[in-house]
Amino acid sequence: MAKNIDFVILLDIYGNMLTDRQRDVMELYYWEDLSLGEIAESNNITRQAVRDSIKRGEMTLAEFEKKLGLAVKIVKCREYFNAISDCACNMKKSGADKTDEIISLAGMGKEIF
Amino acid sequence: MAKNIDFVILLDIYGNMLTDRQRDVMELYYWEDLSLGEIAESNNITRQAVRDSIKRGEMTLAEFEKKLGLAVKIVKCREYFNAISDCACNMKKSGADKTDEIISLAGMGKEIF
Repeated sequence: MAKNIDFVILLDIYGNMLTDRQRDVMELYYWEDLSLGEIAESNNITRQAVRDSIKRGEMTLAEFEKKLGLAVKIVKCREYFNAISDCACNMKKSGADKTDEIISLAGMGKEIF
Repeated sequence: MAKNIDFVILLDIYGNMLTDRQRDVMELYYWEDLSLGEIAESNNITRQAVRDSIKRGEMTLAEFEKKLGLAVKIVKCREYFNAISDCACNMKKSGADKTDEIISLAGMGKEIF
């Protein structure tokens, strides 16, 4: 079972919509990077039960993203804040005028949501 | 029935989790600013049915925000982008060095999600 990096983000955003059990298992798998076997052992359930729980959780998270599309927007937000930070740091160091670029990035950031 | 401005935002963020009917009615009420009577007439349903639909929709939206808390964060994001934009415009106009402030705002923006 390949770990999909996107679910790390989806779990962060929509995790509270899962059942407690599903969220626990998924956090161990995606955030703590435990194997199916390790999660099964620590929760005293079968490896198959862990796999099923993760699969159902993934479907729920994917469904939320399909309907709401917030993860894509949130990632974009972070990218704009990073780009603004880079611009301002560069400006501070080199003295080059980056104000127009920052205004443009902030404007695009405001348009995301 | 007082229109709560917050539902305008919640509807924008979580509206796709409502039924089509609920979303339609709520968009007319919150976005188009139609009255219950006007919505009832245009949809050929009773005023009470419109009111019930809106109440149920509001409960659903509030429940999503209670669990996910994304609206609060999204509003904060917009505020930071606005503040960054103001800083950069001010810097452009007055020549005052606002780079530290912009770096700090972008840093706080990155921490929101």
